[in-house]
Amino acid sequence: MLKINKNFLNLSQKYLFDEIKHKVQKFKKANPEVPLLNLGIGDVVLPICQASVEASKKACTEMGDPRNFKGYGPSSGYDFLKSKICENYLKRGEKIRNKLLQINKGIPVEIDKNEVFIGDGSKTDICNILDLFAQDNICLIPNPVYPVYIDSNIMRNSQIIYANSTEKNNFLPMPSDKKADIIYICSPNNPTGAAYSRDQLKAWVDYALEQNSIILYDSAYEAYIRDDNIPHSIFEIENSKKCAIEFRSFSKNAGFTGMRCSYVIIPNELKFENIKLLDFWTRRQSTKYNGTCYIVQRAAEAALSDDGLIETENFLNTYKQNSDLILDIFSKNDITFFGGKNSPYIWFKYTNLNKNSWDLFDLFLQKTGIITTPGSGFGECGENFLRISTFFVNNNIDFFLKKILTFNTP
Amino acid sequence: MLKINKNFLNLSQKYLFDEIKHKVQKFKKANPEVPLLNLGIGDVVLPICQASVEASKKACTEMGDPRNFKGYGPSSGYDFLKSKICENYLKRGEKIRNKLLQINKGIPVEIDKNEVFIGDGSKTDICNILDLFAQDNICLIPNPVYPVYIDSNIMRNSQIIYANSTEKNNFLPMPSDKKADIIYICSPNNPTGAAYSRDQLKAWVDYALEQNSIILYDSAYEAYIRDDNIPHSIFEIENSKKCAIEFRSFSKNAGFTGMRCSYVIIPNELKFENIKLLDFWTRRQSTKYNGTCYIVQRAAEAALSDDGLIETENFLNTYKQNSDLILDIFSKNDITFFGGKNSPYIWFKYTNLNKNSWDLFDLFLQKTGIITTPGSGFGECGENFLRISTFFVNNNIDFFLKKILTFNTP
Repeated sequence: MLKINKNFLNLSQKYLFDEIKHKVQKFKKANPEVPLLNLGIGDVVLPICQASVEASKKACTEMGDPRNFKGYGPSSGYDFLKSKICENYLKRGEKIRNKLLQINKGIPVEIDKNEVFIGDGSKTDICNILDLFAQDNICLIPNPVYPVYIDSNIMRNSQIIYANSTEKNNFLPMPSDKKADIIYICSPNNPTGAAYSRDQLKAWVDYALEQNSIILYDSAYEAYIRDDNIPHSIFEIENSKKCAIEFRSFSKNAGFTGMRCSYVIIPNELKFENIKLLDFWTRRQSTKYNGTCYIVQRAAEAALSDDGLIETENFLNTYKQNSDLILDIFSKNDITFFGGKNSPYIWFKYTNLNKNSWDLFDLFLQKTGIITTPGSGFGECGENFLRISTFFVNNNIDFFLKKILTFNTP
Repeated sequence: MLKINKNFLNLSQKYLFDEIKHKVQKFKKANPEVPLLNLGIGDVVLPICQASVEASKKACTEMGDPRNFKGYGPSSGYDFLKSKICENYLKRGEKIRNKLLQINKGIPVEIDKNEVFIGDGSKTDICNILDLFAQDNICLIPNPVYPVYIDSNIMRNSQIIYANSTEKNNFLPMPSDKKADIIYICSPNNPTGAAYSRDQLKAWVDYALEQNSIILYDSAYEAYIRDDNIPHSIFEIENSKKCAIEFRSFSKNAGFTGMRCSYVIIPNELKFENIKLLDFWTRRQSTKYNGTCYIVQRAAEAALSDDGLIETENFLNTYKQNSDLILDIFSKNDITFFGGKNSPYIWFKYTNLNKNSWDLFDLFLQKTGIITTPGSGFGECGENFLRISTFFVNNNIDFFLKKILTFNTP
C-alpha cells in the first residue's frame, strides 16, 4: 500500500498570496471605481533587454535548423554561459564602455567554470540543494523569511530553528550561541530589504566555519545594492568558499521571471565529511535534471554582455526611482521603514499605529488603493509590518503617493 | 556540523555514458580513419518544427515588449498549453486535415485541465514525484531499466525490488506475487523498445488496484507506437485513473531535448490515505518550481497544432525508416532483436555469440564502426544485449548496414 509523505500535512494550508488575492477581489467587488496599485507581488514588470531578445530569437532559429539544432545540453549548463558568469564575477568594479555601472559594482571574485551550475530558478535550486544533506540537520532560518526555505524543510521533516529578525537588530540577525548545521541567509533580504555589511557577513562566515556548518546564500537581489560596504557576493568574504554556496538568478536583475534562468556556485574547496559537495551536486543534477533550455541560456549570456548590462541598468534605475519616491514620502510621514536602499523591497509600519499586519493591509488598501503584503505572512516577527515592492511602472504614481501622505490613523 | 546525505555514496560511481565516451575516444585515437556512426545516445537529431520556431520567436519578441512581457507564470503551466494537451488526448484517432496521422493514433482519453502539470523534463518530473511519497515504500523497477528510476530512489534510501525483464517474457515482465507500493512502467520501453499490449497493461492496473499501489507510467516514447493493440496512454485502461500518474514529454516526439518541456497527468480521482495526490503535487510545485519558460510553452503549444503535428510526423517517419532499415538487416542475420517497431530503440544480441555486453560493444564498434549502448549498463538482465537508437540522419547508412550484414563471429 502506497504511503504518502505525511510531512506535507504540516505545511500551512493557505498560501499567503492566494489569501491576498482573495481579499483584493472582495475589495474590488465592493469598490469597483477605486484605482488600485499592486505592490504586493515580487515580480518584475519591465521586459528583458533587447540584447536578450535578439540572442533568444537567433537561438530559436538555430533550433529549427538541422545544421545548428541543439539536443540535450550539459546538465550543468553550457560553457558559453558559465564563462560569461565567471567573467561577470571577476570584472566587478571595472568600467563598461568607459562608464562605471551600478550593476557592475562589487569586489572581483574568482570563480572557476566548473563551480558554476546553471539552473532554471533559484527557488528550485535552493530547494533541490537539500538533496545533498541528511535530514537530521538543524536549519537556522531568519524570521520573517521567504516561505520557501521553511516549506522545503517541512516537506522533509528537518528541524528548523529561527534567527529572529526584528526592529531591534535592524532586521539583520547576527550569530548567537544556537547551534545550526544549515544557515539560510538572503541579503539583500526578502521580505525586509535589509542587507548585511561586509563585517556582519564575516561574522556569519566565522560562525559557520567554527561550527562546520554550511551557509546557503541567496543573493537574488544583488543587483539592487548601492552602498559600497555591502557585499554583492558572499565570496567577497575571506574563507567563505569553505562554508558557503551562493544562489543567483537572472530573474530580478535581467527580468527573467518568465524566462527561467539561475545559477549556483559551489566552490571546489567546499567539503564536508571529506566529500566535495560539488561532486554530489554534479551527480544529483545529472540524475535529476537535463539542463536549462538552450534558448534561455543564450538570452542569459546576452544579458551579461556590455549591451545587455547597459540596458538592464536602465531598467534597474526605474525601480530605483520608484524606491526613492516612496522612501521620500515615508520619511515625511509617521512611518518606520527598512530596505529600499539596496533592495527592491521596502518594509514598513506606522510608528504609532499598533495594528497587526492583516488589519494594516486592509486599512492601507482602503485608504490608498495600494496592495501590499502583510509582514506576518513571512513569519511572526514580521507582525505589524507591510512589504511593498518597487516593481512598477505607473504614470499615476503621484496620485497614490499623495494618498500615503494623507493616510490618517483612524 | 553539517551531515551529508550518505545515500549518495551508494550510487554507482561511473556513469554509463561517460564510460562509453571514454571507450570511443580510445578507439578513435587508435583508428582515426575509421568512420563512426553514433547510435548509442538517446537524443534526437532532427530539429523542432517550423511552427514551434515561429511561435517561440514571437514569444521572444513579446518578452522584450513592456506591453506583452510575461513575468512569473503559473507554476503548473499556462492554460493555453494545458488546453492543447487535453485536446490532444481527446482527439486521438481523428483525422487532421483529412489525413489520419500516425502521431495522432490511440484511443481518446478525457483529461481535465486541472490534471495537467507542465514541467521542464520527464526525468525531473519522475524524480520529483517521489517527494509526495514516504521513503519506506517498496519500489518495483524493471531490470534492465533507465537508470534514473533507480538512482533517484537510492538517493532517498527507498527499498527497490526488481521485475526481471528477459527474453523469456519478451522483455515485458508481468505482475507476480511480489508486493510493491510504487511501480515503474516505461512503455514503449527504454532500453528494450518492448511495449505492453492493452491486456498486459490492464493486468498491471488490476495488480496496482488490488495492492493499493501506484503506477508511475513513463510514456515518453508514445509517438513511436504503430501497432493498434498498444495503448498510447495508461488512461486508455479502465480504472487506471485510480492508480496511475502519466509522464509525458515533448522531447522525443517534437525534438524538444534542448528546449525542455514535459507534462504530468495526475487524475482528480487519484487518492491514497484520503489525500488527493494532485493537491500534494500542486503544493510541491508551487513551493519548489516557478513554471516552465513562457517561450518554451508557446513552442510546445505550436508543436501540437495541426501544422506542428503534420511536420513532426515527417520527422518521426525518418526515424521509423531508419528503424525499418536496421530491422530488415537484423532479420537477415543471426540476430535476436526486440523493439524498433513501436519504439526508437532496438535491443539485440547475436543469437549464437555468447558475449557479455561490453565485449559485444567493443566487437561491434571494431567491426561496424557503430557506437551502441551495452545492455548490462541498464541492469544485469540486460547482459549480452546491446541497445541502438534510430535517431540519426546519415546519407552513408548503407555503408554501415552492410557491415552489420557481414559481421562475422570471430
